[in-house]
Amino acid sequence: MKVVVLTGGVGGAKLVLGLQHALPPGDLTAVVNVGDDFTHLGLRVCPDLDTLLYTLAGKSNTEQGWGRAGEGWRFMEELRSLGAPDWFNLGDRDLAIHVLRTAALAQGEPLSAVMDRLRTAWAVPTRILPASDQHLATMLDTDEGRLAFQTYFVARRCEPQVERVVLEGVDAAQMAPGVGEAIAAADGVILAPSNPYLSVDPILAIPGMAETLRGAHVVAVTPVLPGRSFKGPTARMMTDFGHAVDSGTVARHYAEVANILVVDPDETVAGSPIRIAHAPVTMNSLDEKVALAEACLRLLQ
Amino acid sequence: MKVVVLTGGVGGAKLVLGLQHALPPGDLTAVVNVGDDFTHLGLRVCPDLDTLLYTLAGKSNTEQGWGRAGEGWRFMEELRSLGAPDWFNLGDRDLAIHVLRTAALAQGEPLSAVMDRLRTAWAVPTRILPASDQHLATMLDTDEGRLAFQTYFVARRCEPQVERVVLEGVDAAQMAPGVGEAIAAADGVILAPSNPYLSVDPILAIPGMAETLRGAHVVAVTPVLPGRSFKGPTARMMTDFGHAVDSGTVARHYAEVANILVVDPDETVAGSPIRIAHAPVTMNSLDEKVALAEACLRLLQ
Repeated sequence: MKVVVLTGGVGGAKLVLGLQHALPPGDLTAVVNVGDDFTHLGLRVCPDLDTLLYTLAGKSNTEQGWGRAGEGWRFMEELRSLGAPDWFNLGDRDLAIHVLRTAALAQGEPLSAVMDRLRTAWAVPTRILPASDQHLATMLDTDEGRLAFQTYFVARRCEPQVERVVLEGVDAAQMAPGVGEAIAAADGVILAPSNPYLSVDPILAIPGMAETLRGAHVVAVTPVLPGRSFKGPTARMMTDFGHAVDSGTVARHYAEVANILVVDPDETVAGSPIRIAHAPVTMNSLDEKVALAEACLRLLQ
Repeated sequence: MKVVVLTGGVGGAKLVLGLQHALPPGDLTAVVNVGDDFTHLGLRVCPDLDTLLYTLAGKSNTEQGWGRAGEGWRFMEELRSLGAPDWFNLGDRDLAIHVLRTAALAQGEPLSAVMDRLRTAWAVPTRILPASDQHLATMLDTDEGRLAFQTYFVARRCEPQVERVVLEGVDAAQMAPGVGEAIAAADGVILAPSNPYLSVDPILAIPGMAETLRGAHVVAVTPVLPGRSFKGPTARMMTDFGHAVDSGTVARHYAEVANILVVDPDETVAGSPIRIAHAPVTMNSLDEKVALAEACLRLLQ
């Protein structure tokens, strides 16, 4: 069963890891948001792609929730001692990916080819494709003016009020090689439980993507988690946009693209424009990740 | 007493550290070989400048003889796991300098300005100037063809027989800002005990340098160490060029530029074209480094 998952970073990567365990090797393709990518100290950093790569290679720091297992911070110590910008953490291991990617891009290798080389070197069975090889930049128009995503998220800790999301460069972008083909060949498409505005929309907005998805069987998974205060940029932005912080908002957001929205059994969604299915969406353990993945796959059959 | 020292990396840096201790802050300028600089994985690496910076900042690994104290190797572990080139060691701390420099050079900042910013951040009292802001490349014509310095030195461990040294790019190079002024204002110039062919000649060969040094009081220190087998590229190259491996060869090499050559009390130099002075040239301890520095300064007075 060939499956394509559209995903952002941390939250989405959990489901992608579950799907990787639930599907035979080679059957899964992850199409990953590149709107958060940015250049820092001359290095091209792709937070969502790298989170996918580390998670699927079993190299992520599961306790911390981001970055590498066994990471070191000597590089950052040096930056600080030299008075260089230290607002974005670059781990000693993480740097290897950034340095190799930056050098390869400078030589003219497309981002999709670089990422495929890296995931192959680490024997990751899932294809990891950037949504686009072109540079996009997710910008946020806020009450403090237009901010780049990393500035909003890391430097300003999601505190500014967001008025709208602007995806700079999207009109000139194309789907990366393989993305359209993978979707066309897939038995179904999954929208991972990532931030709809910041992680999934920047994939859906790439020219040709909406047409490619038309007719596909698409299951979305809500990023709204049950039974706990729902913090972070998704909740902040739902509030900023005047929406309720619940899966009804997610269902209405994905009405045009998804056939089904998976929400937690504890959540009731009234008046959804699309079918609601229930499965536990908390993915703390690997078993929970695989169980949610298998629930999604059943909905695609 | 204003002093300029022309130097390569490890061997020369020991004397420069001694000079830094022997002179009042601000009186010493190190003009450093850039012929070994190269671009590796997209990063601009300047081995001699960095050895000077680390040594003078008290951050060098004195046991190992190269690189940083407290260095880590997570970055290199990652490179290896990804199948990337690992023949040149880039430490986790060392990377900070390379990344910051590469980013600054890409923004158009001259190498001399970058290095001045770094040494100032670490409160190094000695001015560290690259001999030139332009790219030079020390190439070796050998029995295996033309090799870049790092290939000869690191990858091929000085095994190929050297026929001659070629400094690519030197004709278009200029002395870095401040070099000519520092030499003109100096009470004396010291040639550090670095490899004459690979470290000092690439400084002397920069257009205008010979004229700038004419009339200056120049004391050279031999790189030939007494009472031990003298290995490494200097001895290898003296042999390859058909010279004896002794300070007489050094004296003849520097006959046009230096007034005095300092050699160890254990060594007798017959038929030198320039004056020979004696001082212990082994610099294991800081005391020995300062003692040799003071001997050089006395010769300049």
